Amino acid sequence: MGEISSSNGNGHGNGNGNGVHASAHLGGDGRRKSCWYEEEIEQDLRWCFALNSILHTGASQYQDIALLDTKPFGKALVIDGKLQSAEIDEFIYHESLVHPALLHHLNPKTVFIMGGGEGSTAREILRHVTVEKVVMCDIDEEVVDFCKSYLVVNREAFCDSRLHLIINDARAELQTRQDCFDVIIGDLADPIEGGPCYQLYTKSFYESTVKPRLNEGGVFVTQAGPAGVFSHTEVFSCIYNTLRQVFKYVVPYSAHIPSYADTWGWVMASDTPFTVDAEELDTRAKRRMKGENRYLDGKTFASASMLSKVVRKTLAKETQVYTEGTAKFIYGHGAGHRSQPHA
Amino acid sequence: MGEISSSNGNGHGNGNGNGVHASAHLGGDGRRKSCWYEEEIEQDLRWCFALNSILHTGASQYQDIALLDTKPFGKALVIDGKLQSAEIDEFIYHESLVHPALLHHLNPKTVFIMGGGEGSTAREILRHVTVEKVVMCDIDEEVVDFCKSYLVVNREAFCDSRLHLIINDARAELQTRQDCFDVIIGDLADPIEGGPCYQLYTKSFYESTVKPRLNEGGVFVTQAGPAGVFSHTEVFSCIYNTLRQVFKYVVPYSAHIPSYADTWGWVMASDTPFTVDAEELDTRAKRRMKGENRYLDGKTFASASMLSKVVRKTLAKETQVYTEGTAKFIYGHGAGHRSQPHA
Amino acid sequence: MGEISSSNGNGHGNGNGNGVHASAHLGGDGRRKSCWYEEEIEQDLRWCFALNSILHTGASQYQDIALLDTKPFGKALVIDGKLQSAEIDEFIYHESLVHPALLHHLNPKTVFIMGGGEGSTAREILRHVTVEKVVMCDIDEEVVDFCKSYLVVNREAFCDSRLHLIINDARAELQTRQDCFDVIIGDLADPIEGGPCYQLYTKSFYESTVKPRLNEGGVFVTQAGPAGVFSHTEVFSCIYNTLRQVFKYVVPYSAHIPSYADTWGWVMASDTPFTVDAEELDTRAKRRMKGENRYLDGKTFASASMLSKVVRKTLAKETQVYTEGTAKFIYGHGAGHRSQPHA
Amino acid sequence: MGEISSSNGNGHGNGNGNGVHASAHLGGDGRRKSCWYEEEIEQDLRWCFALNSILHTGASQYQDIALLDTKPFGKALVIDGKLQSAEIDEFIYHESLVHPALLHHLNPKTVFIMGGGEGSTAREILRHVTVEKVVMCDIDEEVVDFCKSYLVVNREAFCDSRLHLIINDARAELQTRQDCFDVIIGDLADPIEGGPCYQLYTKSFYESTVKPRLNEGGVFVTQAGPAGVFSHTEVFSCIYNTLRQVFKYVVPYSAHIPSYADTWGWVMASDTPFTVDAEELDTRAKRRMKGENRYLDGKTFASASMLSKVVRKTLAKETQVYTEGTAKFIYGHGAGHRSQPHA
Repeated sequence: MGEISSSNGNGHGNGNGNGVHASAHLGGDGRRKSCWYEEEIEQDLRWCFALNSILHTGASQYQDIALLDTKPFGKALVIDGKLQSAEIDEFIYHESLVHPALLHHLNPKTVFIMGGGEGSTAREILRHVTVEKVVMCDIDEEVVDFCKSYLVVNREAFCDSRLHLIINDARAELQTRQDCFDVIIGDLADPIEGGPCYQLYTKSFYESTVKPRLNEGGVFVTQAGPAGVFSHTEVFSCIYNTLRQVFKYVVPYSAHIPSYADTWGWVMASDTPFTVDAEELDTRAKRRMKGENRYLDGKTFASASMLSKVVRKTLAKETQVYTEGTAKFIYGHGAGHRSQPHA
Repeated sequence: MGEISSSNGNGHGNGNGNGVHASAHLGGDGRRKSCWYEEEIEQDLRWCFALNSILHTGASQYQDIALLDTKPFGKALVIDGKLQSAEIDEFIYHESLVHPALLHHLNPKTVFIMGGGEGSTAREILRHVTVEKVVMCDIDEEVVDFCKSYLVVNREAFCDSRLHLIINDARAELQTRQDCFDVIIGDLADPIEGGPCYQLYTKSFYESTVKPRLNEGGVFVTQAGPAGVFSHTEVFSCIYNTLRQVFKYVVPYSAHIPSYADTWGWVMASDTPFTVDAEELDTRAKRRMKGENRYLDGKTFASASMLSKVVRKTLAKETQVYTEGTAKFIYGHGAGHRSQPHA
Repeated sequence: MGEISSSNGNGHGNGNGNGVHASAHLGGDGRRKSCWYEEEIEQDLRWCFALNSILHTGASQYQDIALLDTKPFGKALVIDGKLQSAEIDEFIYHESLVHPALLHHLNPKTVFIMGGGEGSTAREILRHVTVEKVVMCDIDEEVVDFCKSYLVVNREAFCDSRLHLIINDARAELQTRQDCFDVIIGDLADPIEGGPCYQLYTKSFYESTVKPRLNEGGVFVTQAGPAGVFSHTEVFSCIYNTLRQVFKYVVPYSAHIPSYADTWGWVMASDTPFTVDAEELDTRAKRRMKGENRYLDGKTFASASMLSKVVRKTLAKETQVYTEGTAKFIYGHGAGHRSQPHA
Repeated sequence: MGEISSSNGNGHGNGNGNGVHASAHLGGDGRRKSCWYEEEIEQDLRWCFALNSILHTGASQYQDIALLDTKPFGKALVIDGKLQSAEIDEFIYHESLVHPALLHHLNPKTVFIMGGGEGSTAREILRHVTVEKVVMCDIDEEVVDFCKSYLVVNREAFCDSRLHLIINDARAELQTRQDCFDVIIGDLADPIEGGPCYQLYTKSFYESTVKPRLNEGGVFVTQAGPAGVFSHTEVFSCIYNTLRQVFKYVVPYSAHIPSYADTWGWVMASDTPFTVDAEELDTRAKRRMKGENRYLDGKTFASASMLSKVVRKTLAKETQVYTEGTAKFIYGHGAGHRSQPHA
């Protein structure tokens, strides 16, 4: 017998915003797909996912937000037409962002997240049993509320009593605060000149704002934009070089993220040397973390931090440093910064 | 102040299935659109609408159903990946299907709809004050239920006491019934050979099943597929020629429907001559119909029934007739017919 | 045996620019098509043709030009990302633009084309044996040269000794000339405010420049933009209303053009009444024209000039008039006008 | 001044098939792109490149071939609607396929390529000064001819006197030959069951056909399909496991290839242990190879062969082995195998 599948408007009285939606059988298996999400990765390059449904949409003062249910990558958070995070592979991004820094640290108790409104970064941090306090500082309250409501996978994290959520510009917040942190994590949009987050990637910001808020032995890590064979020249090499001006030890690493259609990069930095080898990293993970990682372990990190020849060459030769100077005109520009990476 | 717009799962306790949905601000005005509905009109031709949201989806034993909210054409009913009806221009199709036949008839009291599950054909018929009974016979109960639930514009029609809704194969139903009708309307999928509706376009069906069920002075009208400068050779000319074998007076006509990206065709047939001119058609409409048509009036029909040279030439030379013979292999094929036109 | 089909670079020593090209078997019959031309009809509406090949491309000081070989519509001339003309249905546009005006005129000997660089308008005019002189005035020499070289169908027209090709702004040209014409034809881009052709659609242009250059009994006709059930409000109704201020007799008409995915409009105007009926139009065509029209004849024009109710209502109520006033800021803007319609 | 750019048909008398083409300025910088190549990576996932032009097309008895000029990835070889190789990043694939095997070998003099019709694999092999003979055995003569004619970058390789080109089924060829090789390279389509190359990935083929044709100390390497976090389960893990049944030492490795929108895999196998470390690999490359690699060096290979946790887990647990048994039905199927990887 045929039947009408669940649809949007019926409610069913359940409280689960994610559960009640139109799962568009628009072309069952084997049929042509009718509804598509289309992202312009570059002006001449598109990446398109068949859609099951458009689950939720919203708009904040800074940006448009949507939660889509895509066929190839599951639920996908899209901000201003750019994919932020896809259900089936966000673990690669978030495990790579969080765990190398926390596991290289001897005993991370306090962590500060710049941005991170999605909640996944906090979720990964909170898996570390040493962690006593996580401050997550995102400027966009609506994005945070949206993710709190709809990203089921992060609900527990948002409710964790160790998490302190602050709606503010991360730079202003760090400049005001007196307390220091063991780990500071940058989960922000890329440093596009004139873009909302440029100032949070500059040498002077790292020197005068980030470093003073790190405890002895502290580690800073930031997402660092695309790091593919061609795309690593956009911002990855320059973020690396900028951090190299400020910290004694700097480790760039990368991983291919299928839903981004690219390899992504992160840079970890400290004034304390990174001495943990693959085996010790695995040991620490086992001892200090709840649950098992799906992507990251000692060998994965060893591989991720050994970059390919092309990328190593660019990084070695990179001379550009992000400075406030070039971005001064942004002061008073008003729009603040976006809370999400790679927007 | 930013705000999260209405989203799917919240219900709000209102009973309006259409009202509660995600209106995806995916790219506000001026921005690139992210979500698209894509229809393959032909294998080498696509027609794509930016999407606001996927409102409702379902599946019946015969077909997949979806109600989409599109930017260019409003709400759109899609069956098996083919646009059936778009909010902003379905009046062109349905006014053209219904009113010429009913207005050319002297006093139409009873009408039979083959298919028409969407409800719009019934809605237009019920605007005629002379009409006392409308029998709508559609094979697909789920499509009918879907449209009843979600197509707000047809709700009143579905509740009209003059409407008798029957779930059955229209051919079987007409063969069984004893009563006759003033007007019989074909609102079915195109006569693709081997397709679900082929048998309802054959000469013998018209002769042995339709004609006997028409009262004296009765009129038959059917949607007749695309009727553009090129596309009219697909089925339009052959439906016309088939009806010409069975009825004394046959009038083909057409109209461009923007959301179909084509000109569409209908054929009206009777054994009583069509003598109503443009002025009289307007007079009858004013006297017999509730509300005013948006598209069709006397002059519009005069223009619509004066086909262009290319089309007239094909119709004059058409020799093919749809016969049961060619479609015999379908017997017992099981799937029955689809209830929708141009599927 | 397999074989490598003809490819671009080999030349074969034949002089036919159109004949030697890559006919991309990218997905033969039944296979998915790989290469597509995509046009953004509106920001939320796309129209996509599978491509055989990209035949020729060029750029002028005003615009980019391309000749594509498309699967659904044959060779297609694209200017600045907008389809101008498709091989298989340009006859609808050009027959509709040219023949009603020339056939309603008693004895058209001289014709002036504003724009028309493609050459198809001239080609249709030159089929009239009464015509002794055609002046075609287009501002974009490169477009004209491109079309001369690559549009095989118009080669004969470009070589006809009755054709006088002038590279100039049509307005400047008409203001300078002393001679008058029996028919003046506007084959220009739509009157978008601030666009290149706005000034050639204003009341004062029609009054002070066009009308003085028409002989006694002369006819003016112009393409008038999209004229569909929704799109006719963009410019069609206003062009009609503007001409109504200047000429005693004004006839708007329209036709669905498949490759445009819309119904298109033209407006014909004169101070002499249009008295030719369908039959007389056919008689004149037979007597005065070489070859037979594919699309336009007496009945087709009768139907085309009987607009649908929606469109008639808008036209009757239209009050806007295109005036120089609103476009004054364009003076000295430099870019002149485009030579193509609907750019 | 505007000008008409070079176009396809003019020839210019130069002999360079690639040089004379339409470089479609369809939307210059900053404008919407009009012409697109669209690949269906999976049924619900598309990857689209803006097109400059369609350079050459052809068809063989086995497949359709096209050379496209794409904006994001340069010239792209497409076979049966699947991207084979893109100008700007084919070096990643071909350096990864060829150099690890040749550099791990002590002194590679003779190499056999199964497939490889594009010529790039031969080109990379011929950079090794130790190599005295390369036998390239591809079944599709038309593809080989097409690539010989149009892939300028491989012209020198196709002319190298050390290259012996054979048109034959690689399996038949290896079974017939008496000579042995230092390295055998599989550059074939993926082992899709029922697909053209399945038999060249089976345990019995490796055991009875490949291994006997390897000299003492010989190395076998094969492309091994997608190896991303999700896609590695398709064929990569099974190819690895199959080779593990036949050879004592098996090394799987992978690299992200931007134009494939995925990480790609290769598996290298031998009965002699792989003992060369990163440093020695670099030393050998410097000593034995002409020119410098762009992608692969010792550290790159070290990273590439340290797979991520997810992939390592799957490989460790993989039990499936490709056997002739499952593919027996293909015998006599006639079509032979395709010459290209990842078709």
